Amino acid sequence: MLYIIGLGLGDEKDITLRGLEAVKSCDALFLEAYTSILPGISRIKLGEFYGKEIIEADRGLVETKAEELILERAKKETVGFLVVGDPFGRATTHSDIVVRARHMNINVEVIHNASIMNAIGVCGLQLYNFGMTVSIVFFTETWRPDSFYEKIEKNRKAGFHTLCLLDIKVKEPTMRAMMKGVEEYHPPRFMSVNTCIEQLLEVEENKKQNVYNGSTLCVGLARVGTSTQKIVSGTMKELLDVDFGEPLHSFIICSDEIHEMEKEYLEFYKVE
Amino acid sequence: MLYIIGLGLGDEKDITLRGLEAVKSCDALFLEAYTSILPGISRIKLGEFYGKEIIEADRGLVETKAEELILERAKKETVGFLVVGDPFGRATTHSDIVVRARHMNINVEVIHNASIMNAIGVCGLQLYNFGMTVSIVFFTETWRPDSFYEKIEKNRKAGFHTLCLLDIKVKEPTMRAMMKGVEEYHPPRFMSVNTCIEQLLEVEENKKQNVYNGSTLCVGLARVGTSTQKIVSGTMKELLDVDFGEPLHSFIICSDEIHEMEKEYLEFYKVE
Repeated sequence: MLYIIGLGLGDEKDITLRGLEAVKSCDALFLEAYTSILPGISRIKLGEFYGKEIIEADRGLVETKAEELILERAKKETVGFLVVGDPFGRATTHSDIVVRARHMNINVEVIHNASIMNAIGVCGLQLYNFGMTVSIVFFTETWRPDSFYEKIEKNRKAGFHTLCLLDIKVKEPTMRAMMKGVEEYHPPRFMSVNTCIEQLLEVEENKKQNVYNGSTLCVGLARVGTSTQKIVSGTMKELLDVDFGEPLHSFIICSDEIHEMEKEYLEFYKVE
Repeated sequence: MLYIIGLGLGDEKDITLRGLEAVKSCDALFLEAYTSILPGISRIKLGEFYGKEIIEADRGLVETKAEELILERAKKETVGFLVVGDPFGRATTHSDIVVRARHMNINVEVIHNASIMNAIGVCGLQLYNFGMTVSIVFFTETWRPDSFYEKIEKNRKAGFHTLCLLDIKVKEPTMRAMMKGVEEYHPPRFMSVNTCIEQLLEVEENKKQNVYNGSTLCVGLARVGTSTQKIVSGTMKELLDVDFGEPLHSFIICSDEIHEMEKEYLEFYKVE
């Protein structure tokens, strides 16, 4: 039996009663720890709260050893795979595990929870006015992927808002690790709203299709669903210097066809 | 103090620990009961589970008496407004209450939960490949609103899937009630996947823009997130005769640019 359990967005209290019941019944617990983080709590604290050991499932484990470590075990025992947010809120990884489990005739139960994909509704923009979600990844010297630009263009032409999910780099091996095969990682990095805006403006500067610009109305969000949640609305340029604090950050590019009610709501979060 | 508390999608066990803590602290509890329902449980049973009385907040109460009954009370006491799914998953009503509460300087805290808008990810279609969500309302003799057609067209042209939220009619006053001012309601009605498809095909038949047709790949979903959840994928025509059982139902029109992994996942739910 494999439970895929959404943890919600904040800390240990954001699990559902159904989720906690499932956790209690598990013989082994894995925490997916590379597509998102729980801002309010560590894996160790979460384990103490459950009274159970939690094994960190990093990218390596999930992509190369999931079958052996998680799925084989789930054939005989009850295994819980814990996911920040909703199990299907973000990454394809979780669908992949379910597909593989089903091929192995393992019983799978999904326990849903809040995801950033719906919690962003808290800023007052209506979820049904959002188009396709885009991912903004950290630019490097040699890799500056800008496929999001075309998607944002489609959304804005159709009158949709765009949610931008910002990059997370956890357990990225260092160059030395890759060359010499040793275990050594860069410190974790989480993209800020500010970096996201810089990258967006750089791409607009290159493409010059005027999909958006410094005057486009946007919303920056940090730690949505936690007690330190921060939401600020303003133009892209205005938000460039706002300090959103600790991760995780998200960003919304509003449609120019924004509704009156949505505008009124955003006023509460207007940049000072 | 006003808590807006998401209940999730199934029954009393889908509330989060944080949500339950808030419920316990409330002097008064209202359940929003006209944009959605909890398939697995009634208001009375929910109240027994909490050990508290829950007042039903129907459309009339929320739209005309929210200020007096909910907000004035929240100025002095702790009031909980319970919402099926996530507080911002679906209706503008909830944003409206928050805006009004903020204007009255009432402290508002939102407790998120799963919403149909993200839980549909369970069928294997990736959430970020969805465009704008549309609402399909019951056609009547004289009122056959089809504004969804244009939105589906935009989504499909842009390569997005479309989530269709299906109409719910709860506490709709009868003609007699409206004429004579008495309290009398039609029995509750919930749109089925089948009715949704009939309406969609009728509109295509009239508009003839070939936005979709009987051969378009779709997914019907019922009672998502509950133990009786049913998901079936197939062409619009194939799904026309599938019995999805009890409410609530949802419907997805897939993009023709569906990814390989999404297709593989949908195979699990293929119509027999």
